[in-house]
Amino acid sequence: MLFRQLFDLDTCSYTYLVADAGTKVAALIDPVLEQVERDLKLLNELGLTLKFCLETHIHADHVTGTGKLRSLTECEGIVPENAHAACADRYLSHGDVLMVGDIKISAIETNGHTDSHMAYLVNDTHVLTGDALFIRGCGRTDFQSGDAGTLYDRVTQRLFTLPDDTLVYPAHDYRGQTVSTIGEEKQWNPRFVGKTRAAFIQFMNALDLPDPKKMMEAVPANEQCGRIDMTARSHPI
Amino acid sequence: MLFRQLFDLDTCSYTYLVADAGTKVAALIDPVLEQVERDLKLLNELGLTLKFCLETHIHADHVTGTGKLRSLTECEGIVPENAHAACADRYLSHGDVLMVGDIKISAIETNGHTDSHMAYLVNDTHVLTGDALFIRGCGRTDFQSGDAGTLYDRVTQRLFTLPDDTLVYPAHDYRGQTVSTIGEEKQWNPRFVGKTRAAFIQFMNALDLPDPKKMMEAVPANEQCGRIDMTARSHPI
Repeated sequence: MLFRQLFDLDTCSYTYLVADAGTKVAALIDPVLEQVERDLKLLNELGLTLKFCLETHIHADHVTGTGKLRSLTECEGIVPENAHAACADRYLSHGDVLMVGDIKISAIETNGHTDSHMAYLVNDTHVLTGDALFIRGCGRTDFQSGDAGTLYDRVTQRLFTLPDDTLVYPAHDYRGQTVSTIGEEKQWNPRFVGKTRAAFIQFMNALDLPDPKKMMEAVPANEQCGRIDMTARSHPI
Repeated sequence: MLFRQLFDLDTCSYTYLVADAGTKVAALIDPVLEQVERDLKLLNELGLTLKFCLETHIHADHVTGTGKLRSLTECEGIVPENAHAACADRYLSHGDVLMVGDIKISAIETNGHTDSHMAYLVNDTHVLTGDALFIRGCGRTDFQSGDAGTLYDRVTQRLFTLPDDTLVYPAHDYRGQTVSTIGEEKQWNPRFVGKTRAAFIQFMNALDLPDPKKMMEAVPANEQCGRIDMTARSHPI
């Protein structure tokens, strides 16, 4: 397997490149519009064919690169089932498996940050946790039909039950951390450790965070798989 | 081996944590002053004992965390030989090997960016290239007694001769790239590929880059192993 973590400095977003070194088939998970040229250059240099662009969820902080990548390559755009993105080529449900050459990507429904969200378990060793689980944190639950109780259940029942040595690769990090493990997060993640479901809900509902800077642009664009409605951009609500 | 890449968003600097999972002995390579608390917290959570802080070179863009880490732990501060840092506990020469528990770190003299610089080859699989070799780039050579011709020789003769699958982990990246390989850099690094030594020198000498923002503070502080001279900070030249 060829695995690369890529970072967008402006939004602190991680994109992942997963490829089969044998067949040279590749997938990008959570590509960022502004980084499409960088990512295509890397794919080209590594001799890879981009077959899939996967979203963990409909992002509120950046516009996906999937629309541009679909226009420049033959890749399919894949989103979680129930995502508000009728434009997608394919939808994944909990338990679905996508083969990237000989690499197995299993979808784990981990909603709660938003009402449709998948974590992707790659070859049973790396879990791309999207905004469900961050390194020593988790995604917020106060917009896009988020629900703190659901997030608690998904993380504790579906991610924390993976083997302890599973590598955790989140969709964001704001403190320069790049990777963790399930064992570490079970032991040290302050959002979950020692917190009951009720205490977690109370904590999350009291966060009172400002909206992401790009939210009014990003959500409608991502619901169109990355096609930007310039009217919406010019007249933000 | 336990290996972690850590990032400082402000200066786009990478710090590396290398530890022996058995003996729990750890080293930090190129720690950043502002990230000392984060790094100590991680060491503590992972049950590691910090024994060494290594510098690839005297940095001009950030103050090392080594001074603070030496004051808070029992670690040794280690710098390349000839580095202007009389405060160090130990100096490494080309070919020296440092054992971090059972993990082998070999020093590869790779000066040229500055007049004293080591890359660190970890267990013959990961090379921490400092500012000698970046992903698709390299460090500048226009201050701290840098020399473009020397850098060309060190990279092409001492790094590009490592096995192609050696993982390349640089001290900085400004485009969200996290890792590469020697094979990739030999094939795609535009600073070196298809460039003669003379063409490289000409290119580097024509870069005309502004000084790093923190240079007037960072270099004298790093020559004191991270002790900050407040007078110098108040009266930058």
